[in-house]
Amino acid sequence: MKNVRELAKRRKTVRKFSGRKVSLEDILYCIETAKEAPSGMNAQPWRFLIISDREKKALIRKVCEEGERKFHERLKGELGGWVKEKGITWEKEFLESAPFLVLVFSNKKFRYFIQSVWLSIGYFLLALEEKGLATATYTPPNLEDIKKLLNIPDNFRLETILPVGYSADEKKKEPRNTLEEVVFLEEWDK
Amino acid sequence: MKNVRELAKRRKTVRKFSGRKVSLEDILYCIETAKEAPSGMNAQPWRFLIISDREKKALIRKVCEEGERKFHERLKGELGGWVKEKGITWEKEFLESAPFLVLVFSNKKFRYFIQSVWLSIGYFLLALEEKGLATATYTPPNLEDIKKLLNIPDNFRLETILPVGYSADEKKKEPRNTLEEVVFLEEWDK
Repeated sequence: MKNVRELAKRRKTVRKFSGRKVSLEDILYCIETAKEAPSGMNAQPWRFLIISDREKKALIRKVCEEGERKFHERLKGELGGWVKEKGITWEKEFLESAPFLVLVFSNKKFRYFIQSVWLSIGYFLLALEEKGLATATYTPPNLEDIKKLLNIPDNFRLETILPVGYSADEKKKEPRNTLEEVVFLEEWDK
Repeated sequence: MKNVRELAKRRKTVRKFSGRKVSLEDILYCIETAKEAPSGMNAQPWRFLIISDREKKALIRKVCEEGERKFHERLKGELGGWVKEKGITWEKEFLESAPFLVLVFSNKKFRYFIQSVWLSIGYFLLALEEKGLATATYTPPNLEDIKKLLNIPDNFRLETILPVGYSADEKKKEPRNTLEEVVFLEEWDK
C-alpha cells in the first residue's frame, strides 16, 4: 500500500456517492483502526453507530435538513460567505445516498472526550482512504434532535455523521497551506 | 509498509525515549501528513512548533512540572486513582529527554478548531508510527503558562505537547475494548 503521507494527500472530502455497494467488513476495518487510538486515561470514549437501513437514513436526513434550514436562515458573516461560495445548501442528499452512515459519539463523562474521539476519527479517515472509500465529516447543527430520534443516552454527544461510500464527487480537494505556513522552528516568530 | 490498521494496533503511548538521534525530516514528514487533514471551512487551524533546543526543552519541562505539582496536589477521585495506579507523577522527564518536542496549537477563531486539530493529530501519530518513532499526547494543566513562556499569540490555544523520539519504554500498550464493545449496528441497543 501507499505510505501514510500519500494516503493523507490523496484523501479529500466527498459529498456525492456512487451506487456501488460497500462491504460492512470495510467499515468494521476502519473502526478496528479507529479504536486503537490513544485517549485520556485510556477511556476510549468513542462509540460508532453504523446505519444502512434506507428508512432510517431518510429519517436522519429529514431531521438534519430541518436543522440545516433553520441554520442557513440565520447564516451570515465569514461562514455565510464561505457556505455560499462552496455551493453548500441545507440539502444533505448524501445522508440518504451514501450506502452507510457512521455516527460517532463521545462519552462526555471523560476528560478530553472531544479530543480523543476526533483523534480516532483521524485514524478512521486514513483507513477509509486505504480502502478506496470516501466520506465527509458532517456535523449537523441540531445534534440533540438526532440523539432524540435515535434514542441515544444523555451522556453521549453526537460528534459527527460520516456518510461512507465510493466517491462520485468530481470536486477537487481543497488546497492546503504549505509546510512553511504551518510550521515554526524553535520559536513562534521565525 | 504495513496497512493502516496494523500501524494503529502497533502504536502505543511512549514516555521514555532512547538517546538515538531523530531526523528533522521525519518530523516534517509527519506534519506534511497532518496538514492534509480536513477541517471546518478548510480553515486548517493548526500550527506546529518544533523545539529541539536543550535549554528551551528544560524550560518547558520546568514550567509544566510547576503546573503538574499543583495539579497533583489537588487530584482525587477516579482520575487520582488512575494516575496513582499508572505510576504517573508530576515529573515529566520526557519533555527533556525526547530529542524533539512538537507543540500543537489551534486557532480559536475558527469553528470546530479543537475537532480539526485533533483529527490532524491522529494523522500525525500514524505517520510517526510508520517512521518507527514514538510519542505521548501530553497536555499540561497550565496551558497559559507555556503560552506565556513561548510568546504565543492570544488567539492560539496549546492543544498538546508531543515529545518525539525512539522508544525506550518497555510498558505494553494499554488494552483496547473489543469491536463489539464500541460498535452498534442499525440501533443503539443491539
